[in-house]
Amino acid sequence: MQPFIFPLRIYIEDTDCVGIVYHSNYLNYFERARSEQAEHLGFGIAWQRENNIYFTICYANINYLKPARVWEEVEVVTTITRAKGASLIYDQYLRLASVPDSILCKAEIKVACVDTQFKPQALPGRILDLFTRRKL
Amino acid sequence: MQPFIFPLRIYIEDTDCVGIVYHSNYLNYFERARSEQAEHLGFGIAWQRENNIYFTICYANINYLKPARVWEEVEVVTTITRAKGASLIYDQYLRLASVPDSILCKAEIKVACVDTQFKPQALPGRILDLFTRRKL
Amino acid sequence: MQPFIFPLRIYIEDTDCVGIVYHSNYLNYFERARSEQAEHLGFGIAWQRENNIYFTICYANINYLKPARVWEEVEVVTTITRAKGASLIYDQYLRLASVPDSILCKAEIKVACVDTQFKPQALPGRILDLFTRRKL
Amino acid sequence: MQPFIFPLRIYIEDTDCVGIVYHSNYLNYFERARSEQAEHLGFGIAWQRENNIYFTICYANINYLKPARVWEEVEVVTTITRAKGASLIYDQYLRLASVPDSILCKAEIKVACVDTQFKPQALPGRILDLFTRRKL
Repeated sequence: MQPFIFPLRIYIEDTDCVGIVYHSNYLNYFERARSEQAEHLGFGIAWQRENNIYFTICYANINYLKPARVWEEVEVVTTITRAKGASLIYDQYLRLASVPDSILCKAEIKVACVDTQFKPQALPGRILDLFTRRKL
Repeated sequence: MQPFIFPLRIYIEDTDCVGIVYHSNYLNYFERARSEQAEHLGFGIAWQRENNIYFTICYANINYLKPARVWEEVEVVTTITRAKGASLIYDQYLRLASVPDSILCKAEIKVACVDTQFKPQALPGRILDLFTRRKL
Repeated sequence: MQPFIFPLRIYIEDTDCVGIVYHSNYLNYFERARSEQAEHLGFGIAWQRENNIYFTICYANINYLKPARVWEEVEVVTTITRAKGASLIYDQYLRLASVPDSILCKAEIKVACVDTQFKPQALPGRILDLFTRRKL
Repeated sequence: MQPFIFPLRIYIEDTDCVGIVYHSNYLNYFERARSEQAEHLGFGIAWQRENNIYFTICYANINYLKPARVWEEVEVVTTITRAKGASLIYDQYLRLASVPDSILCKAEIKVACVDTQFKPQALPGRILDLFTRRKL
């Protein structure tokens, strides 16, 4: 499966008084990218709601390499590295759009598929099929 | 009715790259203060949820007078100036805790009482009684 | 001058436990749109920084008409209605991208041009020229 | 060294449309607690600014165990587990204030001491002394 590339701009709201992006906001960027990728793959938020499932975060291991700054154009690169049982594991990183080698922040994030009571649910066939079919 | 005073500290997350509190965060401070005042007056968030009502914002008119900065200790001063029909009108301002005259930001905010479908609901007797009893 | 249209998507981070966009986030959307419009008009954030000016908010009068919800595609429509002295006045509103008549939230926002010490500065000629030339 | 306990309340702004605290906000709570602990230990934000140092995050490994919800009273428990060279390692967790055994979220976070150009700086003697003196 191709990595999914999601572009975004850094706005003033994203920064802090040290002059760089506030560290928790990278998690927001990564979540936006996972949501857009899910939509692209056919299991987006609207589909999740119709099927009474949600994705909740189990862990996030984030490495901060270089600070992002206001008005920069950046990209989140997202790869699902495992889909098994009730969970997905993502590799995600943020880079400058104009310098693809410049990784600013990277993370491994595990999410679990749950119902509206937060009970784990097996990943829907629609999602598993993507990985089987594409031999991820 | 006495104004309700809610103290808070400015953290790094609240600031932006210009070095001051990002302007939308004052609305968050004001909402925290309204929620704490509602709790204090007996119609807090837990009570609202049990009674299937919410408060939704109709308008907010905010004046930014002086910037707040990281690590400052500030206070939100909250007064309900009208309780009528389905709505409450609040006067709120933020000041430095150590300099009560120094108003940094002030707002008039109107909220409406609604049910879970966002249909307006008459203010509960519990709330109206507060104003009648105390001759606000 | 043509209104400036800025599209965006509502993400989970933007919503709250009532199920709608948290009210202060509309101010963030409006600020993103003003920054993008400034860039488009030639006085964007990079240019401001080179010229040691900033735009700080004087007031924001916001009307909340209908709630925005997760995953909706929306647009901020931005018009500068006055440019005089050190300040700009903006009319901005948020609408569903697919239903241009559906205004969810609108605001009048006044910003002042200041230097790095927050002292008011006359609007740069580059900005005033836009309005003179275009007979706004 | 005693763990540092920092109490806080969950507000509507902290939650998302799934009905729980949005996952990136735990990082904000942890940072508030580190800043308050630093103040308590004598190297708070005001002191850092006078000495032209900052603390920037190197990595954060976060485990999400149970969701926090609106209006809950919670506590961040913070322990510095290592102070060496230019960096500090923190163990932090969030628990319900009324149920000390209920850990909702825990993290290991490494921060580095840097100057205003983001160059690493040896930890100030004031900080190292705390650990030597107290035989952490």
